[in-house]
Formats: sequence, C-alpha cells, structure tokens
Amino acid sequence: MTHARRREALRELARAAGLDAVLVTDLVNVRYLTGFTGSNAAALVHAADAAADERRTRLVTDGRYTTQAAEQTPDLERIIERACAAAAVKAATGVGRLGFESGHLTVDAHAALAAQEGAPELVRTPDLVQRLRAVKDDAEVAVIAAACAAADTALADLVAAGGLRSGRTEREVAADLEHRMRGHGADGPSFETIVAAGPNSAIPHHRPTDRPMRPGDLVKLDFGALVDGYHSDMTRTFVLGPPADWQRELYDLVAAAQAAGRAALAVGAELKGVDAAARDVIKGAGRGDEFVHGLGHGVGLQIHEAPPLAATAEGKLAAGMTLTVEPGVYLAGRGGVRIEDILVVRPHGPELLTRTDRELLAL
Amino acid sequence: MTHARRREALRELARAAGLDAVLVTDLVNVRYLTGFTGSNAAALVHAADAAADERRTRLVTDGRYTTQAAEQTPDLERIIERACAAAAVKAATGVGRLGFESGHLTVDAHAALAAQEGAPELVRTPDLVQRLRAVKDDAEVAVIAAACAAADTALADLVAAGGLRSGRTEREVAADLEHRMRGHGADGPSFETIVAAGPNSAIPHHRPTDRPMRPGDLVKLDFGALVDGYHSDMTRTFVLGPPADWQRELYDLVAAAQAAGRAALAVGAELKGVDAAARDVIKGAGRGDEFVHGLGHGVGLQIHEAPPLAATAEGKLAAGMTLTVEPGVYLAGRGGVRIEDILVVRPHGPELLTRTDRELLAL
Repeated sequence: MTHARRREALRELARAAGLDAVLVTDLVNVRYLTGFTGSNAAALVHAADAAADERRTRLVTDGRYTTQAAEQTPDLERIIERACAAAAVKAATGVGRLGFESGHLTVDAHAALAAQEGAPELVRTPDLVQRLRAVKDDAEVAVIAAACAAADTALADLVAAGGLRSGRTEREVAADLEHRMRGHGADGPSFETIVAAGPNSAIPHHRPTDRPMRPGDLVKLDFGALVDGYHSDMTRTFVLGPPADWQRELYDLVAAAQAAGRAALAVGAELKGVDAAARDVIKGAGRGDEFVHGLGHGVGLQIHEAPPLAATAEGKLAAGMTLTVEPGVYLAGRGGVRIEDILVVRPHGPELLTRTDRELLAL
Repeated sequence: MTHARRREALRELARAAGLDAVLVTDLVNVRYLTGFTGSNAAALVHAADAAADERRTRLVTDGRYTTQAAEQTPDLERIIERACAAAAVKAATGVGRLGFESGHLTVDAHAALAAQEGAPELVRTPDLVQRLRAVKDDAEVAVIAAACAAADTALADLVAAGGLRSGRTEREVAADLEHRMRGHGADGPSFETIVAAGPNSAIPHHRPTDRPMRPGDLVKLDFGALVDGYHSDMTRTFVLGPPADWQRELYDLVAAAQAAGRAALAVGAELKGVDAAARDVIKGAGRGDEFVHGLGHGVGLQIHEAPPLAATAEGKLAAGMTLTVEPGVYLAGRGGVRIEDILVVRPHGPELLTRTDRELLAL
C-alpha cells in the first residue's frame, strides 16, 4: 500500500505540472514508487484519468529479474524487456505529455527516446519524485533509525574493544568498523568508510590508508550503515591521548557550530538559514575559510539526497525530513574536526537518530 | 606519465572527431585521465593545438578536495569550484567545438551548460574515454589480477573453513566472504555479493536473505573484490551434498557453454560471435530460454563497462580487453547454475585472471 500511496502522490504532482504520465528511469525512484530493487528498470505512472491511472502503471525490467519483479511488485503489470525506458515509452499509448526525469536521463538516452516512433512529447521534470522522497514516513524513519543504531553500536563496540589505538592503520579500523556494523544488522556500509588520522584528518573526504595511528593524532571517523536500502551517516572525531590545546579549541568550536545547526532544524526554517546558523559560529572564530563544504544534506535511499543544507540552497524544511548536520574545520597539515549527526525534523523540534555521545573522547 | 599518455590518446580521438577540446564529467573517466578520485570533479582536455594542449588541461573539483587533488594531480592546473562542469566550460576560452559525454551528462546539466554565457558549441561524444578504457595496459591488468586473487583466496578460505554448510544463512555467507576478501587486500566488495541457495539460485541477481542453506541446495556465489578502484567478478555454484542428476546435468551444460565462450575470446573475434559460441551450446540442449542475460561484459574501473558480450553487441575484441564470461541457466523454483571468470584477451589466446577451479564441488 505504501508504494500505491506514493504513486498517487506522484500523480498529484504530475497533474499539477500538466502531464499525462511520468516516465521514471532513476532506479532509486523506481524502487521508491514500486518496491523493485533490480539494477535495470523503468516505471510508467499515468496521471490523466484518475479512475484508470493505477491499473495502467507499468514496471519494466529485463529477464534476469522476472522472478524478483513478480515477488516485489505483485500489484503491478510488468513488461520484460532489456531496453526498459524504450519499452515504457512504447507502452505510453494515448499519452500526450510524458514527463521524464531530466536530472537523471542522459542526453543520448533522451535523444533515443525522442526519436522513437510514436513517442509522446517528452517534458522535462527534474525532481518530482525527489520532492516526495525528501519527506519520510514513519516506516522510513524507523529504518533509518535502525541504520543509525547499527553504526552507533558498532562504534561503541570498536571503542570498548580498544580498536582505536596507536599502531593500527586507518584501513584496519575501517574494515573493523564495517564488519561490526554487519554484525549489528547492516547489509553493508552506506558509503566508503572514512578513517583519517593525524594530518589526514584535515582532508575532508580522506580514503583510509596503511598509515598507522599515532599518539596525539586526531582521528576522524565518517561512516554509516545500509539497512533495507536506507543509509545512515555519522562522523565522530577522537584524539589519541590527552588533547593539545589547539585540538580542544578546534573541537569545541566545531561542537558549538554543530549544536547551533541542530537547533536550527525547525519546520519552516530556510535551508540556507540552517547552514548560516552553524557557519556563523565558525566565521565568528575566524575559521570560515576552513569550513569548506555545506552543512549537511538529506539522507534516505541515497546517501546524499534532497534537500541540501548549504549557503546557496533554496527552500524550507518540512516535518519528516531527515538530514545530516556536519560542520567541519580543517587545518591543512595539522588536523581537522568534523561532527555529524542525522536528525529528523519534527513539529516540536529536531529528533536525533544518531545517538553516540558528542563529547571529545581522548583514548 | 600513465595519465598524460591517456590524455594524449584521448586527444587523438578528439581531433579525429573534429573537436577542439573535451569536457569530461563522468567521474570514472576523470579518474582514468587524471588519477583524481574525489566525488565531484570535471576535466577539460584540449585537442586543438598539439604543442600547447597538455599545459591547458584543467582539473576542476571543490574545496573538500583541494589537498587530495594537489596530491593526486600535481602535474595539472586545478580549479576549485563547486559547479565543476560549469567552471570547466568557463575555462574553455577560445574553444569552438567542445565535446561532452552525452552518455553521461543529464538533459538538465547539458541545458545549463549550453545556456552559459560564452559557451562553445557542445558536441555529443558518447564514449571516447570508454573506448580507451576498454583496452587495459599491463599495470591495469595486474591490479585486476590482484582483485581476482583476493576473491579466489577468500573463497578458498571460506570453503576450507567449512563456511558453506547447511544452517548458515545466505547473509552470513555474504558477510563472511566480504570480510575474507578484505583480509586478502580488497578495499571492499566490488558489488553487492550474491549468495543464492536452493530455489533462490534460479534468480540470476538474488540478494542474500536470512534463508538458511539446506542439504541438496545448489548454492550460487557471485562476488568480487575492489582493489585500487578496479573490480573483480567471479561466480561459482556449489551443491550441498551429493548432486542430484538434474543438478549434475545442469552444471555440465553450463560448464560446457562457459568453456566454449572462453575459447572464443580471440583478438578480432566479433562480440556477438563470442556470445553465440556459448549460447549455442545451451540452445542445443533446449535451454536457450533459460539463459536470460548476455554472456559477459568488460570489467575494470567499473564492474560493467565496454565492451558487452551479447547477442546484439557490435564490434570486435582487441588485445588487452578484460571480460567476464558468465553463462547461466535458471530453472524457476528449482535452482540455477552460473559459472563466471574474468579473462584478458591476448594475441596468443585468452588468459584467465580468476583461478578458482571450475569442477562442481559437492560440500
């Protein structure tokens, strides 16, 4: 029923945009609307004739997925064809204006569809489904919370087992953490785990190397779990041994900015205003140039999805949006600190889904 | 030097296509041409003035990657800008015809670039870099071989440790296998590991579930290791206990088809001819309708890349191409068998990179 409800919501957006149907080619959106998880698919969702629309929905996939598609989408009529988008367009008989995902379909793929005999008018619709996906229902929030819990527990286990200690390499820690997440129900990591020690912690998106951790290192862990297709995302920064004054100051600054960002997550808040709430704290300390990325992003079926929290982002927060808040300050050659949580926007205020403590932990 | 040589090869293709420069937005291609591995980038490669072209190459990325880009591309001039493709187009001063990757750039992204003030003529170039990437150099083959070896060794360890036994779930086996690959040098799995037992083995792309393996099950493992950005890919099918006659027959049929496909990998062979060599064996046994996918695909920086081995594929094999050969026959509700290897095409015949034995192993 969830998927049927989502298709109905898409129809409303499509009708408002004057479309007779929508061609969905982004696989994440196909999954969101139908439940199908294969690696080659398209969906056709009609929006012109409310009484008949749902019956006319089509899922297209290829022969590798005949069985899986039948299991995952028993409610839909399916077409088995390797060229999924082409088959969906062919099935769009009687459609005048067919919306397509212009932020996903490539120039070549679009040209091929437009040249197809009898093709309807193809209308650019950049983000209809993304707009729906930005607001999570309770079941989605529960799955994201489970993914956050797998990451929380794995990190607690890692620390308790002495897994963050001098001599271990970044790569060893990354593998250890990912294995522990699986042990706590993750299907895998939600992205390439970042373990960055010492000067490497000043690289925002560092790949783990064979560098061993050393006393006095800042150690930044940015990682998440994948559960039922939903992603978690969390960053914590530790220090190996007693923190130096500059490390403590840096940490306190980022923690203050992060707290300000979290507090700004209110229904109706401007996206750019949330970014500014955290960024202003860092700018005020003269470190604005060393906070080199946006404050955060939506998270769900993709690790980065709508809405962005950035200085140039347009739009407002709504209840049910799940977002990261992750300011960082990076001192090249010395070290960096980032603190990141996932929160869900609620009418009464933001709710934390990542639960790991935020105090600077000296190991 | 490797990357400079690749850019020079791209220039030759670009000049032959009448282009003054190429805008590279596919991140895999950016990595191939420059060595940069960040998650947001574009490259501009000039091709109009041989003497000056290399000096005018630009790598664009954002502020998160300033340090990493300097380390990975010390030979290139870099532009730090969040909107990478837009910045690259802006930097393309004096360019008349700018090729863009029309098989990668979305309709929206293209429209935005075309509307940019002073933008050159944007010319569709579907697969210039993919054509170069299809033929691997010796260093690339060595890395793919290392990825194959990590998978071979992990599987041998799994079997030796009794990891394939009744009672274990598909998910447990998948996690075990992935952890063992890391222990043998993999950065991670090269795609979502497939473990499919019993009737699930008849689903070509099955996701591991909590179903326990049972005596008499066919168990299909399709998995690979990621090493330095390069992917391995291998499938083996086992049987838990003595094989039934139908399982033995099915296995022997697929093994014969796979051997025929491997033997057909010769320099100059038609892609569709290689597919046919294996497919004809299966058709001859009356099982053609149950071999529901192509025979194989190129593999390298992507798990699926050019060239495809399929009934409709156009083109010929060249020395240095690395390909999977992976026929499968799937009997819905009963079980399926797939056998897959990676081979490199050599002038004297194909060379196996995956080394695990291909005999039916009864556990």
